[in-house]
Amino acid sequence: MISRSNKSQWKVPEPALRRLPWYLAYAKLLKSKGETLVSSTQISKEISVDSSQVAKDLSYVNVAGKTRVGYDIDSLIVVLEDFLGFTISHKAFLFGAGSLGGALLHDSGLNQYGLDVIAAFDVSPELCGTTIGGIPVYSVDRFQEIRKKNKVSIGILTVPVNQAQKTADLMIEGGIKAIWNFTPYRIRVPEHIVIQDTSIYAHLAVMFNRLKG
Amino acid sequence: MISRSNKSQWKVPEPALRRLPWYLAYAKLLKSKGETLVSSTQISKEISVDSSQVAKDLSYVNVAGKTRVGYDIDSLIVVLEDFLGFTISHKAFLFGAGSLGGALLHDSGLNQYGLDVIAAFDVSPELCGTTIGGIPVYSVDRFQEIRKKNKVSIGILTVPVNQAQKTADLMIEGGIKAIWNFTPYRIRVPEHIVIQDTSIYAHLAVMFNRLKG
Repeated sequence: MISRSNKSQWKVPEPALRRLPWYLAYAKLLKSKGETLVSSTQISKEISVDSSQVAKDLSYVNVAGKTRVGYDIDSLIVVLEDFLGFTISHKAFLFGAGSLGGALLHDSGLNQYGLDVIAAFDVSPELCGTTIGGIPVYSVDRFQEIRKKNKVSIGILTVPVNQAQKTADLMIEGGIKAIWNFTPYRIRVPEHIVIQDTSIYAHLAVMFNRLKG
Repeated sequence: MISRSNKSQWKVPEPALRRLPWYLAYAKLLKSKGETLVSSTQISKEISVDSSQVAKDLSYVNVAGKTRVGYDIDSLIVVLEDFLGFTISHKAFLFGAGSLGGALLHDSGLNQYGLDVIAAFDVSPELCGTTIGGIPVYSVDRFQEIRKKNKVSIGILTVPVNQAQKTADLMIEGGIKAIWNFTPYRIRVPEHIVIQDTSIYAHLAVMFNRLKG
């Protein structure tokens, strides 16, 4: 049996996990306005998610709402940030320091959400040996060697489409456990590998198409 | 009645629109390998989408596959890029030139997918009057004035959470028709406004949680 205190370790369904950052963002907004309490009904209205769904999502997290009063905002923020992993530093490598990759290296804001990109890899001789946004760029040939010195589980994939699968395979071979895929390519990975696709180009396609209509 | 030639103007379901860039990426990959033909079965296997779904998705686009032969890869690329709007330049403004916003301004690759960010707006006196990645940053007070001189329909939202809704309202008031929301805040917009959420932090949360498991 799993004890109640281990609840936060349970597998939370992905849709719930994806909604929790919305509640966190809203709680932070309320806090900045000086509020101290928030009900699931209020969250529901603001975020346009059914209030029973909000309550269910929050039940995965170790936070207790008080009947007719709601959740204490300060606690909600602390517990959600902790649960979502934003308060611990997770080391990551970035593969492909071109246009999008280079842009992500400039985004120091990722650090505030628990992502610490410690090195980037590229094939371009002009990029290798430089730093971008303070992060060193190495030849991809040095990945295994540098991985051995650093326990890094997350790899950000920002290479060109025709290198996407090959690079993903290399990452996994080198011990990467989770791939954040920014390429429009549907890479294939073994079942135990975590994959998240951030489909920038799909979002552009939807916007362009809807604006035409 | 809508004529057959207008088919590409029809409203395509969003899930189909979001899959089309995958097929495009795969077609480009095959082309780079010297291939000339691809079947929907082959696409289906590679992308892990049901082959009848692939055929249905591609039926929204004006591209004809030949029985037992498949699609001509060159035509498929041209037609998909055109259909998805990646070949026309769509002007955009960016709101919030901080860490993530600044990073996106450095991403010249967006241009290759039809997005042309022509100006950024911010409230910080240190940023206003500068350029980031060659793109001018103005005080947000000048938005209406600059919008009047430029027909811009797309706004990229990269402000802090507590400014997200207010800034979205301002964008819409100034004539923005589509908002690309990178904040973790669920902004609310009138029905005729196109919204796309790129939930970077949700992806981080899923990766962090799954790595714990």
